Amino acid sequence: MTAVAKLTPAPGADVIEAPVPSVGPGDLLVRVKAASICGTDLHIHKWDQWARGRIKPPLVFGHEFCGEVVETGASVTTFKSGDYVSVETHVFDATCDLCRLGRAHVCRNVSIIGIDRQGCFAEYVCVPERSAWRLDVQVPQEIGAVLDPLGNAVHTTLAGDVTGRSVAVIGCGPIGCMAIGVARAAGASLVVATELNEYRRELARAMRPDHVFNPAELDAVEAVRDATDGAGADVVLEMSGHSSGITQALKVAKPGGRISLLGLPSKPVEIDLSIDVIFKGVTIQGINGRRIWETWYQMQALLVSGALDVSPLITHRFPLSRFSHAIDLLTAGRAGKIILYP
Amino acid sequence: MTAVAKLTPAPGADVIEAPVPSVGPGDLLVRVKAASICGTDLHIHKWDQWARGRIKPPLVFGHEFCGEVVETGASVTTFKSGDYVSVETHVFDATCDLCRLGRAHVCRNVSIIGIDRQGCFAEYVCVPERSAWRLDVQVPQEIGAVLDPLGNAVHTTLAGDVTGRSVAVIGCGPIGCMAIGVARAAGASLVVATELNEYRRELARAMRPDHVFNPAELDAVEAVRDATDGAGADVVLEMSGHSSGITQALKVAKPGGRISLLGLPSKPVEIDLSIDVIFKGVTIQGINGRRIWETWYQMQALLVSGALDVSPLITHRFPLSRFSHAIDLLTAGRAGKIILYP
Amino acid sequence: MTAVAKLTPAPGADVIEAPVPSVGPGDLLVRVKAASICGTDLHIHKWDQWARGRIKPPLVFGHEFCGEVVETGASVTTFKSGDYVSVETHVFDATCDLCRLGRAHVCRNVSIIGIDRQGCFAEYVCVPERSAWRLDVQVPQEIGAVLDPLGNAVHTTLAGDVTGRSVAVIGCGPIGCMAIGVARAAGASLVVATELNEYRRELARAMRPDHVFNPAELDAVEAVRDATDGAGADVVLEMSGHSSGITQALKVAKPGGRISLLGLPSKPVEIDLSIDVIFKGVTIQGINGRRIWETWYQMQALLVSGALDVSPLITHRFPLSRFSHAIDLLTAGRAGKIILYP
Amino acid sequence: MTAVAKLTPAPGADVIEAPVPSVGPGDLLVRVKAASICGTDLHIHKWDQWARGRIKPPLVFGHEFCGEVVETGASVTTFKSGDYVSVETHVFDATCDLCRLGRAHVCRNVSIIGIDRQGCFAEYVCVPERSAWRLDVQVPQEIGAVLDPLGNAVHTTLAGDVTGRSVAVIGCGPIGCMAIGVARAAGASLVVATELNEYRRELARAMRPDHVFNPAELDAVEAVRDATDGAGADVVLEMSGHSSGITQALKVAKPGGRISLLGLPSKPVEIDLSIDVIFKGVTIQGINGRRIWETWYQMQALLVSGALDVSPLITHRFPLSRFSHAIDLLTAGRAGKIILYP
Repeated sequence: MTAVAKLTPAPGADVIEAPVPSVGPGDLLVRVKAASICGTDLHIHKWDQWARGRIKPPLVFGHEFCGEVVETGASVTTFKSGDYVSVETHVFDATCDLCRLGRAHVCRNVSIIGIDRQGCFAEYVCVPERSAWRLDVQVPQEIGAVLDPLGNAVHTTLAGDVTGRSVAVIGCGPIGCMAIGVARAAGASLVVATELNEYRRELARAMRPDHVFNPAELDAVEAVRDATDGAGADVVLEMSGHSSGITQALKVAKPGGRISLLGLPSKPVEIDLSIDVIFKGVTIQGINGRRIWETWYQMQALLVSGALDVSPLITHRFPLSRFSHAIDLLTAGRAGKIILYP
Repeated sequence: MTAVAKLTPAPGADVIEAPVPSVGPGDLLVRVKAASICGTDLHIHKWDQWARGRIKPPLVFGHEFCGEVVETGASVTTFKSGDYVSVETHVFDATCDLCRLGRAHVCRNVSIIGIDRQGCFAEYVCVPERSAWRLDVQVPQEIGAVLDPLGNAVHTTLAGDVTGRSVAVIGCGPIGCMAIGVARAAGASLVVATELNEYRRELARAMRPDHVFNPAELDAVEAVRDATDGAGADVVLEMSGHSSGITQALKVAKPGGRISLLGLPSKPVEIDLSIDVIFKGVTIQGINGRRIWETWYQMQALLVSGALDVSPLITHRFPLSRFSHAIDLLTAGRAGKIILYP
Repeated sequence: MTAVAKLTPAPGADVIEAPVPSVGPGDLLVRVKAASICGTDLHIHKWDQWARGRIKPPLVFGHEFCGEVVETGASVTTFKSGDYVSVETHVFDATCDLCRLGRAHVCRNVSIIGIDRQGCFAEYVCVPERSAWRLDVQVPQEIGAVLDPLGNAVHTTLAGDVTGRSVAVIGCGPIGCMAIGVARAAGASLVVATELNEYRRELARAMRPDHVFNPAELDAVEAVRDATDGAGADVVLEMSGHSSGITQALKVAKPGGRISLLGLPSKPVEIDLSIDVIFKGVTIQGINGRRIWETWYQMQALLVSGALDVSPLITHRFPLSRFSHAIDLLTAGRAGKIILYP
Repeated sequence: MTAVAKLTPAPGADVIEAPVPSVGPGDLLVRVKAASICGTDLHIHKWDQWARGRIKPPLVFGHEFCGEVVETGASVTTFKSGDYVSVETHVFDATCDLCRLGRAHVCRNVSIIGIDRQGCFAEYVCVPERSAWRLDVQVPQEIGAVLDPLGNAVHTTLAGDVTGRSVAVIGCGPIGCMAIGVARAAGASLVVATELNEYRRELARAMRPDHVFNPAELDAVEAVRDATDGAGADVVLEMSGHSSGITQALKVAKPGGRISLLGLPSKPVEIDLSIDVIFKGVTIQGINGRRIWETWYQMQALLVSGALDVSPLITHRFPLSRFSHAIDLLTAGRAGKIILYP
């Protein structure tokens, strides 16, 4: 089969011919119908410090996708050939204390598709039965391909009350844009977003926030205070992972409010805990992955009901062979979500 | 001033001339701009068993309204003449253990406007400063007049998670219809409503549920199961107060789901607790009034943001003097919310 | 092996010789070290209406036990021979929507050990790997044998806040007594219990409630109000399943409080929803089984830490062959928990 | 009356004769029966940077106390002379949006007794009626004098579930020690505490933690992991305010766990948000003051029921005139709570 792989510990990736994965007794073989590129894939391609420490070539990478089951292992009982599926890419073990406490999203022995095991930038991918999600046929393939990041946005946004509350989204990469849509769908009374990049601000506008502004031009803290009659935002969703974004997130939060952190800073961040956290009595949530399976139920229900539409965020569609071109567009900050068809 | 009063312990009501209420040190005198008629007013008018036990004539009744502050008592500090206000009609004492625990909506010494004290079917009404709510000027007067029932709907609907969940509304009186709108605004993935009365089903449709059906024609439990792929409704809002509605509410709920009861049955109801509550592990919430002031903040935010529009439920507008005609329409089941202008 | 079985659809039970169960690929064979008799076993023995509708003889019954793994199926990976285990007797399927939403305790396809499948009143019992719980060796066998009912008590009591709150326990069968202990361990500021049977009141006293009284002699509602300075109980745990107990539970609850129902009434109960639920703004929780596995973690932690000691509730210990005598004692209301040793 | 005051913007304090405060219409005059010294008082005495920026001499300081009402203002209705009271020292305005949302502990216009207004190191102190708490007569005066810090400990500890969970307390100043007691009373299955100062470790042991250790001698993270079988602590209470303590708090928390911050760092702290917060999916709560009045109800209930006893933490008792000696002891780290009698 055709696949995109990192063959050597160096920048770049190759389009290769690889054997179709073999299917273990508890596995599904999925024919990939559509895949999408994540920021993580850029790190792997670029071979940055994180990638050098985590990735063991050769590796077919990629983890955002949907497809059709074409083969099932001997012990599989809940899926059959022909099923339309997406996959929870954080493969949990289902047996550790955290999985047994309903926190599989922070499983102690997680193995991530396209990072710790063969990924989806290929015609076929093999996944454990327990990690598969039965997709409603009403979800188009290109949306089915972005449920991993959309699930991040749903998890982050719905980690507390949103309806009738003011929401600030810090950072409008694809997941920040998706979070705007989720907050809107959930009845947020105000959605304000900040983003430095003009292309991304334009993308964000498609999700109908009340305001999107450039924090380089406008003081973010004042802007959110103005938009909330001085009260601050009830809910802050930090999607940038930048130290300045995190500081803004803390400053714009209303006392007693919620700040949910999804963006991953690349190094430690200085926080004025006394002023920004303790005196204000706020709650900070670290958000990882997707609630398994609660997030998936919510996400699919929002999509199928029409309450949420993230199709404006899909800006390009290419055959898998044009992977390199897609990477170039993303690196240049000139794309939202790019769909690849193997 | 002109007012509508129950003068004697008998059916009916009179349009009378009454003195403008005198203002105590902690009170506001409010010029009523718009009022609305509640089912409770029908009970008082009809002089049914509940009314006979609770109401002490002479009484100016009515409790749904908004208006303008025209006079303030000596100790009032937070409102001034000219302020546009609505009022939390459950006047709480702010000092009992429940008020101090943040449960003022079940205050031990509640005194209800238009029931236990002079009401709003009049040109002026006197209310304690602590019970007044500053209305945003963007809220039209006729909407400001229905915040008491809308607050019931907001409290009931948002007493648990709604976003991405299926909601069944049992009974489509005005509050049931409002709840449909709130659930929709909050991103419910499915909203199914039941109502026996055709006029009310039509009213309900204006709030955009997925389905409204007549439980006399269609089996409610089966209909909800069908609409939810057999799963049952995540959230059930019981707005009818009828024993059969309550039974339906329990039967259609998904195991582990939430049933919020607002409709007041006039007598005890037989419940199969083992089958419908305990084995299913559901939660039943009794809902009374509005969370003070959380519900009001949410409600106003939903209205001002445009996420919620209940204007289709306002079907008639009359001068206060036509009170009797309004009562006739409501008794005949031929009206949604009726606005009265003093 | 020796086992206690219902051989025919009629009252009684027989001590028989039965084959050791065969072990499927995902199963564990457990040598039963200690078992205990549940009220459900009395229903099966007596062959009442419920039993006639649910039980299909021949059946080895019994579901409260602990033991040692002596054989593991081919696909078992998380247990091995020699492991000390108890078992979640509600065998969940792990694949239905409710299991996937973290509500395995209300699994749509539950199969209960000793009811729907062969039970533990035997030398050996076969259970699915996923239903087994690794017991801490500090938990004595006779306590390990009562974790099913103790888990009911932990689930019911800890289904909401208890620390610094007043708790009323309605009904002091073994689970009610256990709930007294759990509430005490959790820092309840007051624990009041009601029970008609003198033997059980005595048993209850061993768990150190503040008061235990006989509702036939003292008005339960007044007694709880007196004990709470008129406020009512913050938390009410209904363990009797009697209609009068349920009425008491509703009446003694503080407005805004929590009522958790575990006791199973044998027929529908009349409830004054307006007065006792809606106006008071209380929450009623149906409690079924044990949270899987949250309840088990809490329970084991409470036992191993010494915060909870339920050994006073174990009143008799017999060899399995004296099953019939044990049943007689329980039927006569002259026992707490009886431990059987196969 | 005799009082302890900061007369000039310089280190130290004076025992002075001051006029008895005059009582406004909504005020209570309280005869101070017992007071206690807070770390904040040390800052004021020492005249450090924080004090220089906040305190406006002349000021009678002190804010931990209980006493007897001896005079009431004209509009006071809920207290009378002779009432035994303690006081919520964060005087909230009851009218800002946060107060109205049930978050009076983060009131936008808070005025703190002994900091922003005259304090309790005096024979009499004047407080608003709405800030007074009716003390149960079973609470001894010396305990009534420490409800401000004890309320901090109750608020922090009970800001999430504790029963059957493992708790790590970082820092064993008086509030840390109190938190140990609260966690124990709430049925924590394990309580581990860390503290550098040997005197404080000894004090902590009086509250019956499972382990207290010196993080200078033992690696805190490893020690907590060892004590929790490698799992980490379910609940972490950060009471030190030191940057190293905060880092420990984050490292020892179990994935998905809770970290509640009460200790106030004097400057920004570097946090590895990716590793310690986001990937672990933990929740961090900033804790300020006491929930008004929920914390007070819980605290008094725990004290009166006997579930909680903090008397071992009261190490010294002096007449108010020996204030200076008390300050010396505290500065030397040779005291727990010191009670002053005016």
